[in-house]
Amino acid sequence: MDDSNREPRVQVERRSLYDADGNVVPAFIDAVRHAVADHDAVQLKAEIEGLHETELGEVLEHLTTDERKRLVGLMGGDFDYTALTEVDEAIRLEIIDAMSNERIAEAVSELASDDAVYILEDLSEGDRNEILERLPFRERLRLRRALDYPDESAGRRMQTEFVAVPPFWTVGQTIDYMREDDDLPETFSEIFVVDPSFKLLGAVGLHEILRAKRPEKIDSIMHPTRHAIPAEMDQEEAAQIFEQYDLLSAAVVDENERLVGVLTIDDIVDVIQEEAEEDLLRMGGVGDEEISDTVVTVARSRVAWLFVNLFTAFLAASVIGLFDGTIEQMVVLAALMPIVASMGGNAAAQTMTVTVRAIATRDINIHNSGRILRREVLVGLLNGTAIALLIGGVTWAWSGNFDLGVVIAVAMVVNMLAASLAGLLIPLLLNRAGADPAIASAVFVTAITDVVGFLGFLGLASWWFGLI
Amino acid sequence: MDDSNREPRVQVERRSLYDADGNVVPAFIDAVRHAVADHDAVQLKAEIEGLHETELGEVLEHLTTDERKRLVGLMGGDFDYTALTEVDEAIRLEIIDAMSNERIAEAVSELASDDAVYILEDLSEGDRNEILERLPFRERLRLRRALDYPDESAGRRMQTEFVAVPPFWTVGQTIDYMREDDDLPETFSEIFVVDPSFKLLGAVGLHEILRAKRPEKIDSIMHPTRHAIPAEMDQEEAAQIFEQYDLLSAAVVDENERLVGVLTIDDIVDVIQEEAEEDLLRMGGVGDEEISDTVVTVARSRVAWLFVNLFTAFLAASVIGLFDGTIEQMVVLAALMPIVASMGGNAAAQTMTVTVRAIATRDINIHNSGRILRREVLVGLLNGTAIALLIGGVTWAWSGNFDLGVVIAVAMVVNMLAASLAGLLIPLLLNRAGADPAIASAVFVTAITDVVGFLGFLGLASWWFGLI
Repeated sequence: MDDSNREPRVQVERRSLYDADGNVVPAFIDAVRHAVADHDAVQLKAEIEGLHETELGEVLEHLTTDERKRLVGLMGGDFDYTALTEVDEAIRLEIIDAMSNERIAEAVSELASDDAVYILEDLSEGDRNEILERLPFRERLRLRRALDYPDESAGRRMQTEFVAVPPFWTVGQTIDYMREDDDLPETFSEIFVVDPSFKLLGAVGLHEILRAKRPEKIDSIMHPTRHAIPAEMDQEEAAQIFEQYDLLSAAVVDENERLVGVLTIDDIVDVIQEEAEEDLLRMGGVGDEEISDTVVTVARSRVAWLFVNLFTAFLAASVIGLFDGTIEQMVVLAALMPIVASMGGNAAAQTMTVTVRAIATRDINIHNSGRILRREVLVGLLNGTAIALLIGGVTWAWSGNFDLGVVIAVAMVVNMLAASLAGLLIPLLLNRAGADPAIASAVFVTAITDVVGFLGFLGLASWWFGLI
Repeated sequence: MDDSNREPRVQVERRSLYDADGNVVPAFIDAVRHAVADHDAVQLKAEIEGLHETELGEVLEHLTTDERKRLVGLMGGDFDYTALTEVDEAIRLEIIDAMSNERIAEAVSELASDDAVYILEDLSEGDRNEILERLPFRERLRLRRALDYPDESAGRRMQTEFVAVPPFWTVGQTIDYMREDDDLPETFSEIFVVDPSFKLLGAVGLHEILRAKRPEKIDSIMHPTRHAIPAEMDQEEAAQIFEQYDLLSAAVVDENERLVGVLTIDDIVDVIQEEAEEDLLRMGGVGDEEISDTVVTVARSRVAWLFVNLFTAFLAASVIGLFDGTIEQMVVLAALMPIVASMGGNAAAQTMTVTVRAIATRDINIHNSGRILRREVLVGLLNGTAIALLIGGVTWAWSGNFDLGVVIAVAMVVNMLAASLAGLLIPLLLNRAGADPAIASAVFVTAITDVVGFLGFLGLASWWFGLI
C-alpha cells in the first residue's frame, strides 16, 4: 500500500513491466540486467522500485542464476522477500541457498507468517532452527506451530496473525482494541470471537462492526462459523470447502477446536488453480513439471510414462502380429488399420477428458453414472456411424473395393463404441479403486482402443475375405 | 448469515447433504424427491431449509426436470434464487422458463446485483424489459447499466452495490453514514473515495477505517487504486489482473474513470477455474461441454474434431501406402510400425501439454523460447535414446533379427526428436498466429509424429534391407 502517492493512475507514468498483451517487455528485463552487470545499486533500485511482488518474481524468473543472486545482493535490505513466494521452487531455493541464515532471519521477520512458512518449509531442519532462534519469541512460536502441521495442510498455508476478542466485549471496546494494538495483521476483513481457552465461538465481519453501535455486545452481532477448517486438513480439501461455500476467509482450528489461524481466499486461489492444472498435466503424461526445471529432472519424470506406454504399443503390435498372414495377402490392410485405431483413440480421449474433469469436480461418481453411460454410448453410436460412413465411402473410392469399405465401417463403429465405454468406465473404476484417474486412464484406454481397433478390423477382414 | 443460531457447529446436528468424501448422499436426494412427489411443502422446507446456495444447486442438479419445477413451485417465496447461479445453464433456463415474469421480478429483487444480472442476461430482451419494469427505479437503473456492458465483461460480473464517500469526510462521518444508510451491500471489505463527478480517487480498507481516529480525514488514510478495472474489459483479462496482484476486490470504472461497481474475488474464482479447465477440455478435443448437455449437443460438438482427425489418419495411411511393396516382403514391419508412431505421439503430447500450459500462464512466448527449445531437444534425445535401446533390444529378441532392432531404434530416436520439436514449436507458432494452441495443436503434432514415425521407420527399413 503506497500512501505517498495520491494520483490514481500511477502505473501510466513509470515504465511498465508488461506490454498491452500482458507479456513481459524485454527492454525492461534488459535494463535490470545492465544495472546488475554494472553493480549499479542506485540504477537497479530505480528500475525495480515499486514493482509488485509478483512482478518482481517475474523479473527474477527472466534472469540467469548469477544475475538473480547479484540482484538480491545489490538490493540488500531493500529487496522485497515476498517475491520469493512468487517464483518456482528451484529458483527460490537457489536464491535462499546463497543467503546467510542471518539474512534469511531478517527477511523472514519482515514477512507475513504464511509467506515466512512458505520459505522456511523448504529449508533443512538445521538451518530452519538456526533461523527461528534469531526471531523474537512470539514470532518464533507462531512459525513453529505452523511448521508443525503436515506439508500442504491448511495449517501450513494459514496466517497466524488474526484478531480475536471475547464475546462479552462491546463493539466500542473492540474498536478501541484494534486502534491501539500494534501487532495486528496487515489486512483483515473479519474478527473472531473466542472463549477464554481460545475455543472458536464465531466471527463478525468488519462491516458488521462498523454498522453496529458502540455499546452493542459482540455476542449479539456475531454469527457461528459453520466452516471452520481443521489445521491438519489437506489444502486441496480446504480449497474445495472454499469453493463450495464461496468463502473469502475461514478460521483454522486445532484438534481441540481452538483458533490457531486464518486461511484467506488469496492463499486458496493458487491451490484451486494448481488442482485444475494438475489434471491437464497428468493427462498429458507429465508430473508437476515447472518450466524452470532442468533437462535431467524433466527427462527422468517423463520417461517413466513413456516406458508404460511402450507396453501398450507392444500389446498392439502383437495383436497385429496375429494377422501377419492376412496382411501378407492383402497389404492394403496395413495402411488402413491405424485409421481405425487412432480414431478410436481420439474419441476415447474426448470421453475420458470429460469424465476425468467431472470426477474432479464431483459431478459424477460410480453411483450416478447410469445416465452418463447411456449418453456416451449414444454419442459413440452417432459419431461412430457418421465417421464410419465417411471412412467407408473414402476407402471404397480409394481402393475400388466395396467390401473393404464395409469392413472398415463396421470395425469403426465397434471401436467407437469401445472408446465411449472405455473412456467413461476406466476413469470411474480407477477412481473407485483409489487411483488418480488423470494419471492412469490414458494407458488403459489407449490399450483398449488399439487392441479393439486392430483386432476388430483385421479379424473382420480375415473372416470377410476368407484369409485365415 | 444465520444469526438465529448461536451454536458454532450447526451442521453436525442436521442431516448433511455430503458424506465424508464430499459426495452427495443419495438418501438426502431421495427424501427431497419424496417430499416433492407428495406435494408436501412443509416436509420439503424442513429438508432443504438452511442449505447453502451451492448445496441447493447441487440438489437441483440431481432431480429430474419435472421435480425441479415442482420444487420451485412448492417452495414459493421461500426458494433461495441465488441457487440458480450455481447450476448449469441448461437447468437454469429450464427453471426460469417455467416461472412467470412477475415471479422472476420478485426473485431478482431479492438478489445481489451480480446474481440478478447472471439470471437476466440469459433471458430474451422482451422478457428482460418486462421484468426490469417491475423493479424499483434505483435497482432497475443499476441492473440496466450492468446489462449494457458486453457479455462476459467485468461490467457484467461486477456488483453495483458499494460504499463511496468524498475525500474530505472524516472517519467519524464515514462510520456514521455506514451505520445509517440501509442501502449498503450485504458484505464489503473496503470503501471507495470519489470526487463530485464520481471519478475514482482511491480506496480505504475497513480495517484501516476501524484503526483510525474519528476526526481523521478519509483523504489522509486512503490509497490510490492502482488496479481499477475498465467495465468493458473481458472477464478473463480481469481475472488475470486479480491473479497477478493477488487482489481480493477491485473497483470497476467506466470510460470516464467513474466508479460503477466492484468486482470481488469470489466472482473471479469461477473465471480463473474455468480458464484452467478450458485448456484441459480443448486439448482433449471437447468444447465447453457440460455434464448435463444432451446427446445431440455433445455428439455435434465432438464430431467436428473427429472429422479433422480423420484427415490426419488418412495422411498417415497414405504414407504407409507408399511402402506396400516393402511391407509385402517383410510383414513384421506392419506390426512394428505403430510402435514408432505412437511413442512419438506420446512424447509429443508431453511436450505439447507443458507448452500449452506455459503459454496460458505466460511463462513462455516466441521470444524467450530458446532455452526451452534446447531443453526439449535434449530431453527428446535422452528419452529417445533410452526408449530406442529398449525397443531395439526387445525387437531383436522378439524377431531374432539384429538389423531390424537397429532400424527401429534409429527410427525411434528420429521420431522422438521430431516429437520434441513439434510439441514445442507448433503451439508457439499457432499462438503467434493468433490461434488457440490448446485446440489446434494436437492435430498438427499428431500428423507430424505419425508421418515421421511411419516414413522414418518404413523408409529406413526399405533402404537398409534393400526392399525398394
